[in-house]
Amino acid sequence: MLERIDVIGRGRVGAAVAERLRERGIELESSDPELVLLCVPDTAIAETAASISPGPWIAHVSGATRLSALEPHERRFSVHPLQTFVRTLGPEQLDDAWAAVTAESDDARAVGFWLAETLGLRPFPLDDNARTLYHAGAVFVSNYLVTLHRAAALLFDSAGAPAEALEPLMRRTIENGFELTGPIARGDWSTVEAHRGAIREELPELERLYETLADATLALAT
Amino acid sequence: MLERIDVIGRGRVGAAVAERLRERGIELESSDPELVLLCVPDTAIAETAASISPGPWIAHVSGATRLSALEPHERRFSVHPLQTFVRTLGPEQLDDAWAAVTAESDDARAVGFWLAETLGLRPFPLDDNARTLYHAGAVFVSNYLVTLHRAAALLFDSAGAPAEALEPLMRRTIENGFELTGPIARGDWSTVEAHRGAIREELPELERLYETLADATLALAT
Repeated sequence: MLERIDVIGRGRVGAAVAERLRERGIELESSDPELVLLCVPDTAIAETAASISPGPWIAHVSGATRLSALEPHERRFSVHPLQTFVRTLGPEQLDDAWAAVTAESDDARAVGFWLAETLGLRPFPLDDNARTLYHAGAVFVSNYLVTLHRAAALLFDSAGAPAEALEPLMRRTIENGFELTGPIARGDWSTVEAHRGAIREELPELERLYETLADATLALAT
Repeated sequence: MLERIDVIGRGRVGAAVAERLRERGIELESSDPELVLLCVPDTAIAETAASISPGPWIAHVSGATRLSALEPHERRFSVHPLQTFVRTLGPEQLDDAWAAVTAESDDARAVGFWLAETLGLRPFPLDDNARTLYHAGAVFVSNYLVTLHRAAALLFDSAGAPAEALEPLMRRTIENGFELTGPIARGDWSTVEAHRGAIREELPELERLYETLADATLALAT
């Protein structure tokens, strides 16, 4: 659909995106791009967009940023790869991930879906007004999953157990389709109380987290 | 090391354990077992143990239950497979998982390690006094991971995004070694505040969970 794309920014996402587009035969060095794709930090999107002469499509890859940040451009959309990226890996990080495409016209949505698919992503449409809820959901399963792991690693360290033993348990919990097992699923409140008591004694900084998650598990997952 | 093991209980764990032992050539139907392995619910361990005539080794597979539940037996230990099990899968669920072995003598520890390795588990020693902290850690990464996924799925539903898109993000977060990315890692508090505002408006039952996890992420993971 497009042959010339100017990717601005080579951070974690920009580097993977540019390399994947190159692999797909897209011309990246052009004075006449059909699309300018902003892979800059969220806080730099509005300023960068404002500095570009209207004409080509313009898009960003941020999950949190609304399309209005791309003013004054009207041929605009966003493609947010729903994935976490590291600098040590390449465009293969895009494979199998999904992407939220936000657009205000059928044309823009078609270009956004084409871009997502060209990158190797599985696109779905996302309303601009819904992106804050969507992005909060992503934070829960990515950033907060890191937090759960850190909390568990502290508990394991304190118990003399190897933190690396946690990983197969996490992977299987996902593979098993998030079926809830364990004391809360069994209604075994004496075990939950024992956990709280031991945490209060050894790692009191985790008590509120344990308790809030226990309450949420009972409310959401049982 | 042992040739005859009586496995009592054929729930999620007991079924997988018995089948794996059978695969390894252990005799399960014997009037003269060298080990009685209790795979019964935690609440039934003490009563079941008390009903068995002293003589053979006796062990349980519970993470939460202390060895004193195996009274009056003295030749005792526990092997807790650090994994979540479903009824629809078999002994392959034991592969790659770790196991906490709790024992009070070198002999008991040797039998516990042998049993764990025979089951296909990677054993590590766990002090009986440390098991509550250890078990609380397991709850964080297994049960509470389910809770994070449910919360995120509610947010995605509310945003019109497909919940199945969450899984590749969760898997990669683990594969990437739990590196923290996202707004809290960047110190982007305006995005965090926007999340809180949107959650308060659309899914207020998640606000305390979001906020507690944000605080914990800042404290533990940055």
